[in-house]
Amino acid sequence: MRGVAFSDLHCSVARSLDVVGERWTLLVLRDAFQGKRRFEEFSRSLPVARNVLTDRLRTLVEHGVLERRQYEEHPPRYEYRLTPKGMDLYPVIVALIQWGDRYLAGADGPPVDLVHRDCGGAVGAEAVCRGCGNPVHARDAQAEYRMHPSP
Amino acid sequence: MRGVAFSDLHCSVARSLDVVGERWTLLVLRDAFQGKRRFEEFSRSLPVARNVLTDRLRTLVEHGVLERRQYEEHPPRYEYRLTPKGMDLYPVIVALIQWGDRYLAGADGPPVDLVHRDCGGAVGAEAVCRGCGNPVHARDAQAEYRMHPSP
Repeated sequence: MRGVAFSDLHCSVARSLDVVGERWTLLVLRDAFQGKRRFEEFSRSLPVARNVLTDRLRTLVEHGVLERRQYEEHPPRYEYRLTPKGMDLYPVIVALIQWGDRYLAGADGPPVDLVHRDCGGAVGAEAVCRGCGNPVHARDAQAEYRMHPSP
Repeated sequence: MRGVAFSDLHCSVARSLDVVGERWTLLVLRDAFQGKRRFEEFSRSLPVARNVLTDRLRTLVEHGVLERRQYEEHPPRYEYRLTPKGMDLYPVIVALIQWGDRYLAGADGPPVDLVHRDCGGAVGAEAVCRGCGNPVHARDAQAEYRMHPSP
């Protein structure tokens, strides 16, 4: 079943994972959110084979998550910058950080503190209601199917 | 580099992905948040080989994300329920839904509406400051390293 394309499943989680669910991709995006832009920066940061990193960056560019821009002409060099579509993955990254910090950090505590520049508070991620603005627990939400059963 | 364990990287995103980043795992969790509990329910919902599903459920139980409970004695049958640790993955799932809904839904629109039971509003996910309570954009947050450079 290795061949099942997540993009064919009638589900937004599956479709998102079809773009960002490959091994290393979310770590590339974490680095991009931390300001890394150049192939060598990603390569130094991640213990991933260069051909795999090349592939992941290409996929993200193809899906419009990163934009590839030339920043030097001789020799030609390119950098990778988050697009608005890529920026909108921020809650995914923060939610993964938060959960890892809470449950997997071990005795040393979280490796990085994510801090709000305005007030110095800790940054987290949560489900919220766009109607009333309140935080939403899993039990407080209901899935309403539009057309087909999922997936 | 296939052998690099994400759990060894000094990064909470990597550590989280070491638990939930395998193919199918986040879709199993999506189903669990939708109330599915039994092997046959997951199996009917997901076009995944049964041995892979068995493996993913076992991993989630080993990490304390799901709890395996016997609900029938003859024959012995088990169900899988989200633990509090598992429940805390809700923002990850909602953030993936939100991004897929926004960018990958196509002409039919999102397959499912996630609705707040209290007020009927749409449920989303966002990064928020635990200090001031405001939503946080990627540009408004700063990563402060505690001990080691990452990773």
